[in-house]
Amino acid sequence: KVEGDTVVYPNIMELQMSLEEIEKGGYDHFMLKEIYEQPRAIQDTYRGRLLADQGLVRMAGIDNHLEKFTNADRIIIVACGTSWHAGLVAEYIFEDLARIPVEVEYASEFRYRNPVITPNDVVIAISQSGETADTLAAIKLAKEKGAFVFGVCNVVGSSIARETHAGAYTHAGPEIGVASTKAFTTQITVLTLIALKLAKEKGVFSESEFHEMLTQLEGVPAKVERALQSNDLIEAIAEVYKDSTNCLYLGRGYNFPVALEGALKLKEISYIHAEGYPAAEMKHGPIALIDEMMPVVVIATRKGHYEKVVSNIQEIKSRQGKIIAVVFEGDESVKELADHVVEVPATSEPLSPLVTTIPLQLLSYHIALMRGCNVDQPRNLAKSVTVE
Amino acid sequence: KVEGDTVVYPNIMELQMSLEEIEKGGYDHFMLKEIYEQPRAIQDTYRGRLLADQGLVRMAGIDNHLEKFTNADRIIIVACGTSWHAGLVAEYIFEDLARIPVEVEYASEFRYRNPVITPNDVVIAISQSGETADTLAAIKLAKEKGAFVFGVCNVVGSSIARETHAGAYTHAGPEIGVASTKAFTTQITVLTLIALKLAKEKGVFSESEFHEMLTQLEGVPAKVERALQSNDLIEAIAEVYKDSTNCLYLGRGYNFPVALEGALKLKEISYIHAEGYPAAEMKHGPIALIDEMMPVVVIATRKGHYEKVVSNIQEIKSRQGKIIAVVFEGDESVKELADHVVEVPATSEPLSPLVTTIPLQLLSYHIALMRGCNVDQPRNLAKSVTVE
Repeated sequence: KVEGDTVVYPNIMELQMSLEEIEKGGYDHFMLKEIYEQPRAIQDTYRGRLLADQGLVRMAGIDNHLEKFTNADRIIIVACGTSWHAGLVAEYIFEDLARIPVEVEYASEFRYRNPVITPNDVVIAISQSGETADTLAAIKLAKEKGAFVFGVCNVVGSSIARETHAGAYTHAGPEIGVASTKAFTTQITVLTLIALKLAKEKGVFSESEFHEMLTQLEGVPAKVERALQSNDLIEAIAEVYKDSTNCLYLGRGYNFPVALEGALKLKEISYIHAEGYPAAEMKHGPIALIDEMMPVVVIATRKGHYEKVVSNIQEIKSRQGKIIAVVFEGDESVKELADHVVEVPATSEPLSPLVTTIPLQLLSYHIALMRGCNVDQPRNLAKSVTVE
Repeated sequence: KVEGDTVVYPNIMELQMSLEEIEKGGYDHFMLKEIYEQPRAIQDTYRGRLLADQGLVRMAGIDNHLEKFTNADRIIIVACGTSWHAGLVAEYIFEDLARIPVEVEYASEFRYRNPVITPNDVVIAISQSGETADTLAAIKLAKEKGAFVFGVCNVVGSSIARETHAGAYTHAGPEIGVASTKAFTTQITVLTLIALKLAKEKGVFSESEFHEMLTQLEGVPAKVERALQSNDLIEAIAEVYKDSTNCLYLGRGYNFPVALEGALKLKEISYIHAEGYPAAEMKHGPIALIDEMMPVVVIATRKGHYEKVVSNIQEIKSRQGKIIAVVFEGDESVKELADHVVEVPATSEPLSPLVTTIPLQLLSYHIALMRGCNVDQPRNLAKSVTVE
């Protein structure tokens, strides 16, 4: 007979533990499982929304408020941590494809800095948990100022989902690992769908360009699957650098936020001081850090930037830095210069973050594991930050 | 008799050397001299422009194009390195005081990312040398798109000064040290003058508020002078942390960019991997790095944020991190928690970066010196980056 809470609590604990085992589905850690779930999670996120054969993107949260977006003076994205990085990717996508000015803000800074917001602004709030305290507070501020607020969350019925005027869920499934992986790629998927739809609505895209991008997005899960096949190679690279104390991550354009996110992953779970930078800023300071002890992860995919990134790599090499490069399959120039090369399938530039981010997730996972860190529960960190 | 270049060159070299000695004016390094020149440099920069007794800001570059600024949909600031940090400070000032939406961009990213720019946008380009290649290229792109481009440079007649539609010089005098110091504070001075003028013109400020801010800005050089008196204290702190391999810098609001700039200084001249963060983002990742080996520099001045920053400090302390705090004179709460406290004279919040940045410059100088680094000519770095 149950008497008080003391009897009930242990039962719940046991159930959770066994549920965890089931949920790990043969993987050693939630994080690894969640990394491998990404092809499916991305597909689940665009399923029913991306109708490539009909040449349509159907999202209720957008369809019902379309003119808010097409008439927006600005889109202001507020988020924290990994979600903020997804917002930075979205800035490139929205401006490049939909031609709407975008400002990305740390939610914690936005709410305290007396920002200029008008009823003509659309605010997009991104949060896996939908409970991030600073993001929630930023939403309330934006609503007070009359902006239309759109949420991108993973947890159904979460506070942010309820506080926003409209929104779109990422269908990533539960993310248990504290270091966010599939939440990031599915956030980018949702934001890409929105940007593509707006590009079409605003007449930036022709029917055929739109169709082409939809088909390409549909092809991303298979490319992510192929990127995951580098796992053994990345494990071998991790073995070389597992004792590093510092690391730099460089990218340009769409892959600048990927560099930031790659660095954050390494920081979070391996406690190595990793920092991301837009590659061209190297010469304005960080290059002073480069010596033979400093591994530098470079994402070198974009055609338009390619020569510049190659020249950045040469500068690092001439200071004895070690290069781990993420390139598109078939790359030649970087392969000759880099100490290690990870190839991922080529995509059009706006979709590349979905693929280039995969090897960086795996790299941080393997390094953390080799250092004996608790991959799923890194020290000092909580899964969602529900205090300010 | 002079025959060819071989005879002439050594003469020129000798002259430069003796000129250098004169220019160092008794200081061991240009950087230290330039740090100490800041009260004068800030004053020189507002002299003739800031007419507090008349309640006027007079700047030809602004006066001649006033409606461009007052009617601007957005101000887009493009810059690199330290100038980019000055741009971030300006974002807070312009939005907070003049109520104009601001977007700050890395020049190198801006020009390649197909940004949305219209003839209703004002682009402000910031560069000490006026020769920064990426910034120059960004200016050309902005001009092609029809934007009004305003330059903030230190070197008279430089390429950026010539390429822009209008501009305002910082009157910092020659900056020889590769790590920028007085260029940073004088850039902020110019941008503050502009923001104050626009706040007045747009009717955001009343006559008396405007007058009050002008008077306060006039008082900044004396406060910088007082901040410089912490030099011995900071030298003692440097002695404690000179062998650190890593360091974090935290700030909020107006002092978030100051944290970034403080970290960049340390990186540039001491080769310690320092990274700046908005304090509230700590919990979204970087706090995993904190242990007893990690010094954390915290700028904890703002009244509105103060409790939040105090709570950030408590979190770091509970993970055995070491705290070096920069606070306003008379602070109580932080003093109890921090391992080291540097007091600077209190200012109104928008002017605080001009003062709080001083101890961070001195800290990087002393640490670099103790590590035997070449303070004025750090490895791998050039004074101005004239290649992309």
